Amino acid sequence: MLVAKDRKQFLLTLRSGEEFQTHHGILKHGDLIGCTWGAQVDSHLGVPFYLLQPSLRDLLLLIERRSQTLYPKDIGYILLRLSAGPGKRFLEAGTGSGALTMALAWTVGDEGRVFSVDPREDMQTLARANLSRTGLEERVTFLHGRIQDDFEVPSVDGLFLDLPEPADALEAALKYLRSGGAFGALVPTANQAEGLLAKMELLGFGNVDVCEILLRFYKTIPERFRPADRMVGHTGYLVFGMALHE
Amino acid sequence: MLVAKDRKQFLLTLRSGEEFQTHHGILKHGDLIGCTWGAQVDSHLGVPFYLLQPSLRDLLLLIERRSQTLYPKDIGYILLRLSAGPGKRFLEAGTGSGALTMALAWTVGDEGRVFSVDPREDMQTLARANLSRTGLEERVTFLHGRIQDDFEVPSVDGLFLDLPEPADALEAALKYLRSGGAFGALVPTANQAEGLLAKMELLGFGNVDVCEILLRFYKTIPERFRPADRMVGHTGYLVFGMALHE
Amino acid sequence: MLVAKDRKQFLLTLRSGEEFQTHHGILKHGDLIGCTWGAQVDSHLGVPFYLLQPSLRDLLLLIERRSQTLYPKDIGYILLRLSAGPGKRFLEAGTGSGALTMALAWTVGDEGRVFSVDPREDMQTLARANLSRTGLEERVTFLHGRIQDDFEVPSVDGLFLDLPEPADALEAALKYLRSGGAFGALVPTANQAEGLLAKMELLGFGNVDVCEILLRFYKTIPERFRPADRMVGHTGYLVFGMALHE
Amino acid sequence: MLVAKDRKQFLLTLRSGEEFQTHHGILKHGDLIGCTWGAQVDSHLGVPFYLLQPSLRDLLLLIERRSQTLYPKDIGYILLRLSAGPGKRFLEAGTGSGALTMALAWTVGDEGRVFSVDPREDMQTLARANLSRTGLEERVTFLHGRIQDDFEVPSVDGLFLDLPEPADALEAALKYLRSGGAFGALVPTANQAEGLLAKMELLGFGNVDVCEILLRFYKTIPERFRPADRMVGHTGYLVFGMALHE
Repeated sequence: MLVAKDRKQFLLTLRSGEEFQTHHGILKHGDLIGCTWGAQVDSHLGVPFYLLQPSLRDLLLLIERRSQTLYPKDIGYILLRLSAGPGKRFLEAGTGSGALTMALAWTVGDEGRVFSVDPREDMQTLARANLSRTGLEERVTFLHGRIQDDFEVPSVDGLFLDLPEPADALEAALKYLRSGGAFGALVPTANQAEGLLAKMELLGFGNVDVCEILLRFYKTIPERFRPADRMVGHTGYLVFGMALHE
Repeated sequence: MLVAKDRKQFLLTLRSGEEFQTHHGILKHGDLIGCTWGAQVDSHLGVPFYLLQPSLRDLLLLIERRSQTLYPKDIGYILLRLSAGPGKRFLEAGTGSGALTMALAWTVGDEGRVFSVDPREDMQTLARANLSRTGLEERVTFLHGRIQDDFEVPSVDGLFLDLPEPADALEAALKYLRSGGAFGALVPTANQAEGLLAKMELLGFGNVDVCEILLRFYKTIPERFRPADRMVGHTGYLVFGMALHE
Repeated sequence: MLVAKDRKQFLLTLRSGEEFQTHHGILKHGDLIGCTWGAQVDSHLGVPFYLLQPSLRDLLLLIERRSQTLYPKDIGYILLRLSAGPGKRFLEAGTGSGALTMALAWTVGDEGRVFSVDPREDMQTLARANLSRTGLEERVTFLHGRIQDDFEVPSVDGLFLDLPEPADALEAALKYLRSGGAFGALVPTANQAEGLLAKMELLGFGNVDVCEILLRFYKTIPERFRPADRMVGHTGYLVFGMALHE
Repeated sequence: MLVAKDRKQFLLTLRSGEEFQTHHGILKHGDLIGCTWGAQVDSHLGVPFYLLQPSLRDLLLLIERRSQTLYPKDIGYILLRLSAGPGKRFLEAGTGSGALTMALAWTVGDEGRVFSVDPREDMQTLARANLSRTGLEERVTFLHGRIQDDFEVPSVDGLFLDLPEPADALEAALKYLRSGGAFGALVPTANQAEGLLAKMELLGFGNVDVCEILLRFYKTIPERFRPADRMVGHTGYLVFGMALHE
């Protein structure tokens, strides 16, 4: 990742012989390969850039998107609520642009696995491209179709639904989740949350809760410490529960 | 973890021959060993309990504490901002009751490592006990002393300060963090945030930002969907930045 | 109002000859009559009290209640959204403990009028007592019954519903509101808000909006400036609109 | 006020013989004079407009401004905390664009009075124009200068500071406030709040508290009830206290 003085960030894969062009001038990939993380490099116009290893959050924010993607504020909490960690298996529907897919793949490591279901082929192609730029693609199995279809997926530790009608898909999805496994969903509207909660009650979930996360950034001038003027007012309601199979 | 119908949760380590006593009756450990996760077991009074694998959040909330500990809402976001994942190395000061220590240890896996510094021996004993109950102790190196002391710690990918005066400790702590590595801190007061931001400016941090996370739970009755009456109003300001060593 | 050093507040009506007893000692009403606002007076045990004129907020918080009452944070905004001011006429249903009744009566002055409808006689008796303690009772007409009943009320400038089923009462209540007049309601649940919005759509309201107000208090120690640990997470959704009669 | 179907709002003073031009066509003032509030009127292009009496909030939002003005969410709460009502006297510094001036003037009625101090003549000219459009100008005395200057102002019931350095002005301003009177201030930064709190401690204020108000709007489609995507993240910290003169 190259970061300019004006804080603009560029994600790129270095290939010797190629050039990177910005309105601040040109940088040769060859000059960047082998530099230490944090190094300052100058464009041919003498404009300085920092060469930085992208953080997980950078990857999530710089993702190429063709849909509303999950925000880091929600993803961080989802990972924790799903007990994501090395060696775990997760199933998500739908894939979307692949933000949560990427975060899950990052966290489960080489021993874990992420299964990602989506009926839209274009979205899975996009998500696959996003994953492959970060080297995490091999930890993910993309499954094309609706979660109501029959997939060969081993029992997973966690299940996440990011669908327009999660209540309709819940029962079908649940069969992939091991007993005691964590379920989560994000829904934008209160009506969807109400419908999903009613369905979870029917299906006998344990430990049900719903929350929303408000993230407020501050201006960083020490002498004038204050919240930013505007903030994200809503992304979605997060619904969690635990599968209790008989 | 045993969960009663009244949602009360008990964390226990199963040892054959032992008994677990609650006001709902007695359960023999021997009867629980070998049960599948999610199984329903009855006490000698016939009161039903669920045997569940504790989630990471359960472990964090059920931790034995002798100090204010970090909340899951903050920990989830900290893990993401520090790019926590398998194989990473982290340094934190101070240890406290070990909540973040546990979450970091959970996430870095067997290949990663967490170094945790605290001058209070009683707190480290407590944190060690909390870690050992979850089987994560072996991923952590406890270091006794102040972060300003000289420890033999290899360069780490991320650094987190949970100290009364992080501004005073920052410079000393920074030498353990690799260039491009992620720095984070939680401070309860605006004054501490102001002091820390001023110090970060002096030390040339990149990508500085400050935020706070408000988590709002909802009641889960579908026909009366609404936020809970009361909520946590504040835990702390989260300060993040990137080390830019020359 | 008497305020003790420990910030405990007592609302009382001074009557010569009477005594006021607290666990900090006794104060004679006669010694207080004629004192200037802000004066310090000592109990017979030498414990100091301040004699203060209660603010509108004090009156609202010290109200005797037998139901959930509206909070000052909501009342302040409701008054503004209803364009409350001297000489205006308002209709509210239901009365409850009389908090909004009191705030409206305070604001409309001697030239204005507040009509307050409630089917529960005990609540109106309580509200009347609360109003009479503050000398605002004469600005209020209490109407016993449901808003769906037929009352002789002149066209009002603003209408507020604080009812379990405002959607059911809206059409009946609307006939009292002049064209262009302001309508408001507070509903605790999202489901009620959804139902009320659907009804407002049917009835052709203009300028419809819905909001909620989060009030966050701070600790007031200058060297440790920070939000309070806990806060009110929810009181209700505020729904507003403008009557557009043909 | 004329409101178009696209919800665009126009504030105008009707004068017979004049015309009102919009991109939706022309309306003759003469055709509007005498219409009832809420009437629908068509432009010469046949585009419908509603003729509505502006609410207090409309007036505050449609104010002509040359500075950051107070938001309705804060003004509503300030009015309540200052016990604003008919017949009261208030002093504010500075005037700014006159939003709070207008709200106070609205609330105190013909028997009350608002004194508004500002060193900038251009701002007072603007505020005076804003007030005069609403017919509230006669309730306000504009005082040109700094609050530290010596003005002939009778003792007031409430004092509000909206100044860059309220801590510096507090002692001078306090002499105008009666004992037991309400003090308020809005400050954008935590540092200013800290400085003001320290000064209030020195000057012996009672009932000190600080808060902030987060107002969150919702989308009003009943079938997709949800908060708006973005919201105002910060306007300022509200500081309140009670003058306790010896």
